Amino acid sequence: MQKLILIKVGGKVVEDPVSLNILLKQFSAIKGPKVLIHGGGRLATALAKQMGIETKMVDGRRITDKEMLKIVTMVYGGLVNKNIVAQLQAMGINALGLTGADLNYMEAVKRPVKDIDYGFAGDITKVNIEVLCPLVENNIVPVLAPLSHDKNGQLLNTNADTIAAEASIAFSKYFETELVYCFDMPGVMTDPDDVTSVIPNLTFKQFKSYQKEGVISDGMIPKLDNSFLALSKGVNKIRISNISGLKFGGTNLINN
Amino acid sequence: MQKLILIKVGGKVVEDPVSLNILLKQFSAIKGPKVLIHGGGRLATALAKQMGIETKMVDGRRITDKEMLKIVTMVYGGLVNKNIVAQLQAMGINALGLTGADLNYMEAVKRPVKDIDYGFAGDITKVNIEVLCPLVENNIVPVLAPLSHDKNGQLLNTNADTIAAEASIAFSKYFETELVYCFDMPGVMTDPDDVTSVIPNLTFKQFKSYQKEGVISDGMIPKLDNSFLALSKGVNKIRISNISGLKFGGTNLINN
Repeated sequence: MQKLILIKVGGKVVEDPVSLNILLKQFSAIKGPKVLIHGGGRLATALAKQMGIETKMVDGRRITDKEMLKIVTMVYGGLVNKNIVAQLQAMGINALGLTGADLNYMEAVKRPVKDIDYGFAGDITKVNIEVLCPLVENNIVPVLAPLSHDKNGQLLNTNADTIAAEASIAFSKYFETELVYCFDMPGVMTDPDDVTSVIPNLTFKQFKSYQKEGVISDGMIPKLDNSFLALSKGVNKIRISNISGLKFGGTNLINN
Repeated sequence: MQKLILIKVGGKVVEDPVSLNILLKQFSAIKGPKVLIHGGGRLATALAKQMGIETKMVDGRRITDKEMLKIVTMVYGGLVNKNIVAQLQAMGINALGLTGADLNYMEAVKRPVKDIDYGFAGDITKVNIEVLCPLVENNIVPVLAPLSHDKNGQLLNTNADTIAAEASIAFSKYFETELVYCFDMPGVMTDPDDVTSVIPNLTFKQFKSYQKEGVISDGMIPKLDNSFLALSKGVNKIRISNISGLKFGGTNLINN
């Protein structure tokens, strides 16, 4: 099978034009089929503030009421996505920006209300990745915004890590798939203050034991849980890295 | 040649969800290859106001400084475009939202400063419509936002009527092309207060004589000038209409 690399970029990289440009240059240099998935939460929060709208988060997840949905649609689907596409085009990459509604490539359902009403947050139900396969085979590079839709006309805010994992799983039917989570840290670290403490290879068992000991905590846990799930569902390789480690570095996850 | 219909929707229709839904239903019922082009100026102005940013217009054209470019990128490329795409998907139309940067389908140059500095406004230089032909032939419906790019990473605000005309001209090499400008009035009228005064067929000579007499004036003049130019450059049919006349009504322009 042909290789396909998916890079998910989030955190400060998205809001800092210099870092973003460095990342996009590295991304554009990768040979063969590739996909970029981006976040943009900090920019959405900044716009909300500028508009006098309060951002509510529960366990790191955004409460997306009607006004916040407008904001994330503008920031993720417009500002961030289209600027990345324009920059990639300048680097000779034939980029195409997409939400889940475009080509209906990712369907979701509004998250059911249990203890918390997350509003217009989408839980993915169906990934029609086959509509993107002929594109990536023709050197077109999808740039995926963290928005899905319910096929009834409703856009839904969807976690970018989840979009990246679900797209990778779906692509792994057709490609040998590598997913790289690119964020602000050089990888999974045993000491968050020591950049030399990056774990080069991390098995699921080690992760669970580090989690028990409290060595790995907070936001890294759902990221790793999702990643190991994606590995078990067919993704060939997953790494967690910062820009400098994009090509080979960071933490390599091992599914056992 | 196969027929292709392009509908450009602007004015109040875009900002009123009920009118927009009626338009999209009619649009979705059109058989065969089709393209939708949308504006969104009023919504951009409203967002600017909410953000405390002043909107400056000269002769009906927006001055697009750095802050205003962010706003139109968010509103045109994100909010309006993605909501239209999601609604069309709900109607069974396989819509794909695009700016000129996506697939590099429309290149432009930042408007040179003469008397007025329009800022990040784009004058179209090259339409790579051949990238969209295989899509429309495969029942994919492009939804075009009024944004182009300069191929050096810069997005540019571009008049939606112009995008519609340039896309129609380019498509007319491959399709028998009809362009319908759908706006708030039932067509070109001899008396703006009398909806029964719509001119059913308007030749270029008649237009110029009406213009001389002051019967046709203001914003209608550039719209008609551009339209007659597009007809002379190969577009097969151009009509100007409101939603009710979308299919057959309004004013039909005749190139002599």
